[in-house]
Amino acid sequence: MQGQGRPRVVIVGCGFGGLFAARALRHAPADVLVIDHNNYHLFQPLLYQVASAALAPADIALPIRTILRHQPNAFVMLGEVERVHLADQHLDAGDSRVPYDYLILAPGAVDNYFGHPEWHGFAPGMKEVEDATLIRSRMLLSFETAEIESDPDERAAHLAFIIVGGGPTGVELAGSIKELAVDVIARDFRVTDTRRARVILIEAGPRLLPAFHPDSSERALKQLHGLGVEVLLGDPVTAVFEGGVEVAGERIHSYNVIWAAGVRASPLVATLGAELGPGGRVQVLPDCSIPGYPNAFVIGDAAYLVDSATGVPVPGVSQGALQMGRYVASVIEEEMRNLGGSHVAGDGASKRASGGIIPMTSPLSPGNARSRRAAGFHYKDLGAMATVGKSRAVVEIGRLHFGGLLAWFAWMALHITVLIGFRNRIAVLTSWIYNYVFFRRGSRLITGLSPTNVKQPIAPATSTLQPPSP
Amino acid sequence: MQGQGRPRVVIVGCGFGGLFAARALRHAPADVLVIDHNNYHLFQPLLYQVASAALAPADIALPIRTILRHQPNAFVMLGEVERVHLADQHLDAGDSRVPYDYLILAPGAVDNYFGHPEWHGFAPGMKEVEDATLIRSRMLLSFETAEIESDPDERAAHLAFIIVGGGPTGVELAGSIKELAVDVIARDFRVTDTRRARVILIEAGPRLLPAFHPDSSERALKQLHGLGVEVLLGDPVTAVFEGGVEVAGERIHSYNVIWAAGVRASPLVATLGAELGPGGRVQVLPDCSIPGYPNAFVIGDAAYLVDSATGVPVPGVSQGALQMGRYVASVIEEEMRNLGGSHVAGDGASKRASGGIIPMTSPLSPGNARSRRAAGFHYKDLGAMATVGKSRAVVEIGRLHFGGLLAWFAWMALHITVLIGFRNRIAVLTSWIYNYVFFRRGSRLITGLSPTNVKQPIAPATSTLQPPSP
Repeated sequence: MQGQGRPRVVIVGCGFGGLFAARALRHAPADVLVIDHNNYHLFQPLLYQVASAALAPADIALPIRTILRHQPNAFVMLGEVERVHLADQHLDAGDSRVPYDYLILAPGAVDNYFGHPEWHGFAPGMKEVEDATLIRSRMLLSFETAEIESDPDERAAHLAFIIVGGGPTGVELAGSIKELAVDVIARDFRVTDTRRARVILIEAGPRLLPAFHPDSSERALKQLHGLGVEVLLGDPVTAVFEGGVEVAGERIHSYNVIWAAGVRASPLVATLGAELGPGGRVQVLPDCSIPGYPNAFVIGDAAYLVDSATGVPVPGVSQGALQMGRYVASVIEEEMRNLGGSHVAGDGASKRASGGIIPMTSPLSPGNARSRRAAGFHYKDLGAMATVGKSRAVVEIGRLHFGGLLAWFAWMALHITVLIGFRNRIAVLTSWIYNYVFFRRGSRLITGLSPTNVKQPIAPATSTLQPPSP
Repeated sequence: MQGQGRPRVVIVGCGFGGLFAARALRHAPADVLVIDHNNYHLFQPLLYQVASAALAPADIALPIRTILRHQPNAFVMLGEVERVHLADQHLDAGDSRVPYDYLILAPGAVDNYFGHPEWHGFAPGMKEVEDATLIRSRMLLSFETAEIESDPDERAAHLAFIIVGGGPTGVELAGSIKELAVDVIARDFRVTDTRRARVILIEAGPRLLPAFHPDSSERALKQLHGLGVEVLLGDPVTAVFEGGVEVAGERIHSYNVIWAAGVRASPLVATLGAELGPGGRVQVLPDCSIPGYPNAFVIGDAAYLVDSATGVPVPGVSQGALQMGRYVASVIEEEMRNLGGSHVAGDGASKRASGGIIPMTSPLSPGNARSRRAAGFHYKDLGAMATVGKSRAVVEIGRLHFGGLLAWFAWMALHITVLIGFRNRIAVLTSWIYNYVFFRRGSRLITGLSPTNVKQPIAPATSTLQPPSP
C-alpha cells in the first residue's frame, strides 16, 4: 500500500491532532498512513448543534480521503485499532497487521461516567455523529410524546431536559435546547406550550465553565438565566436512572438526560502498558513520546503532559491537540531529514533499547541548535470561547474577557474559519443565517427511533462507543 | 386535542397524498389530524440522492408540524397506526384510540420482495431516510474495504453494485452510483481504481422504465451505457444471498445489492378487511372510498383504482397520490358545507348501514350539479421524467419525448419546484451546483455501521419497515 523503502508514519485517529500531524508531514520523506474508525474528520466543537437540530451531520464532517486528496504521501485506512504492540512496532486494526516506523496516537477521548458505565444507557454523551443524532431524535420525540401524553407528571418529564456538566459543551447545549423550545418549535405545537419546557444544567463544581476565568463563568450564568435555563451548581449527580437523575438528595424527572460531565482517554491507550495519568491519559515525555519508545507519540485528549514552561497540564481542547500534532510532525520530519530519510526508526533495536528521551537526532544535529525533540512541546494558549445562544457568548483572549454580541460574532467567525472544507463553511454559515432570520432549524428529523421507544434505554447502532475488544 | 363540536378528518400518512389532502382542507369546517410514523414529510423522489451521498437527509425532509404551522385547523400526531376499525370509526395508534368522522388513508408503500422477505437482509430497499443512509454507508464502506482487501475476488465483490429493478428509482440510482465511483471519489483512493467499479442494473422485463414510452427506455439505456453501467434485461433475479444475486442461472458476486424492483401497499391496509387488488392495494370505489364505508378513503400507493375515463389504473407515482389527496379533500369539504358543517359522518349509523356509494350529499346537492363524489376521481397525466446522471435525463410530456441536457434541466427545475420548504430548495440547489462544479458530494458519511460489518446482513435500527404488530 505504501511506497517502497520509505519510512512509514502511522497516525491513529483523525481529529484535530491526527489531521494536523498528517498535514504537517506533507513534505516529509515518508509515507503517512492515517487510520480512523470514521471515514470523516468531525468538527466536534459544533456537534452540539447537530444534537439541537441546527446543523446536519454532513455540515461538520468531511471525508478524510478528500481532505488529504492532494497530499501524495498520505494514505487513509478505515478501521478500528484494537491494540498497539510498541515493542514490535506494529498495531492490529481489524484483520490487518500494520507495521510502523513512527507512531502518532491521537485516538481522542470517550465520555467519562466516573465508574458508572450503566448510566450511559440513560444519559448519552456526545462524541460521535451517531450520539448527536440520537440525542436530537430523543429530544424531538419527547416533544411529540408530550403533545399526546395525558398524565401531567409524565408530560412534565418529557418536557424536562437535563444536561449534566457545566463545561463549554454543557453550556452551549443548554442554551441551544432552550432556544429550540422557545423560539423554534413553539408555534408548531397546539397543546403543549414548549416555551415552558425546563432545561436544567447541573454542574458539580461551584461555577460554570471551570476552565475559564470566573468573570466568564458569571457572564455565562447570567446569559443562561436570561434565556430561562435553570442552573444547579455545587452538587454532583449521584444517580442516573430511567426517567431522571438524583442530585442533592432530590430526584428530577426527565426522559432527556444528556451527559457532558467529562471525558477520559480512548480505551485504546490502556492497551499500551504505559503509565496512565488523570482521566486514563498516557503520561508522555516532554516531546509527547511514550517513555521507552521515542518513535511512538501520544497527542491530544489521550495524552497527559505538564508543560514545563508553565507548570500547567496541556488542556484537552482542540488547540492542544492541533499544536501537539504539528509539533510531533516537526520532530519526526527533523529526524528523518537529519538521518537522510532512511529507515531511522524502522531498524531501531538500539533506539528501543536506549529508552528515555535521548534525542535520536543528537549525533547528527547541526551545531548547537537544539533539536525540536529536545526543546519539548509547549502549549500556546490562544484563548477560549463558548456561545450561550443567539447573540450570546463569552470570549477570553489573554487578559481580555468579554461577552455579548461582539463575543458571539467572534465565536462564529472563529468556528467558520477553523471548520475544514469550503462547502461545509458555506453550509454552516447559510444555516446560521437561516436560523437567525427565520427562527427555524433545518435538521429537525427523528431518525433511527420508532415513535414508541422514547423511554427505552439507548443502544447505539454502532460499536464506536464501546472499548475495542481485546 | 381538537376543537369542540367540529367533525374530525383523520389523515394517516403524510406523503404527497396525505399532505396535499391536509392542505386542501385548510378552509374546511373541520379539524384535520395528520398521523405519521415520521415527524417529517419526505420528498421520496430525491431519496436516491441521499443514498448516493449527494444530498443530506435534512435537505429533502421537513417537519410536518412546520409545514402545517399556519393552518389553524391542522393537528399533527407522531405515531404508528396499527389498526383501523372501520365499523367503529376509530383507529389504534400506539396507546391512543383515535376516533374520526372522515378517514383518509395514505400510508404509502413498502418494498415488495415478491414472497422472499428474507432477501431484505441482503438487498435493502429505499423507502425511508434510514434505508437511504444505510445504503450510503454500506456503499462507502465497500469502497473502503476494497482498498485494504488483498483477495481479488473479494475486492471485486466489494466493487460490484447491483440494483434490482429498472424503474425510475433503479435507473437514477445506477447512474448516480456510477458517477460517484468515476467522477467523485476516484482521486481519493490510492490503490483501488474506483472508476472500474461495476454497476449492474437488472430488470426482469424486456426494457428499462416499463411505464415510459419505448423511446425513453431506449434513450435511458443508451445514456446508462454511456456512463458505463451494465444493464441486464429480460431475466428476473432468482436468488439474493449474502454476497450476491443469481440471475439467468448465473451468480454475480456483490456486497452491495439494492432493491428497487417494486412496491406493495403498506401492510396497514391488510387490517381493513377490504378487498385487495394487485400489490396488496385496496380496491377503492371511483370516489376513492372503501366499499361500504363512504367516509373512509384510501389514496396514493395503497389504493387501486381503474380510472373510468381511461380504463387505466392510476399509477403509483407522486402525482397520483397528490391528485387523489386533493380530490378526496374536495369531496369531504363539499359534503360538510352542504350539510352545514355539522357532524355529518360522525353520527352516521344510517350512513354506515347504507353502504355502497350512495352520495351522502345528494339530498342537499344544489340543482343538477353533479357532486364531486358522484363525478369520481380522474387522473390527469402530467408526464413522467427520470434522470440518468449529470446532464442526462428522459422526459415525457404528453406526446413529447426528449432526452439530454434540456431534459436534465427540466427534471431539476421540476424537482426544485415541487420540493417543499424554502430552505430545502436552497439547500438542494446549492448542493447540485456544488456537485456539478466541483465533482464532489457533500454527504459522504459512513454512519451507523462499524468498520468491520460490511458483509453482515442488515438490521435497520427502526421498526418502520416492519409490518405493524397485530
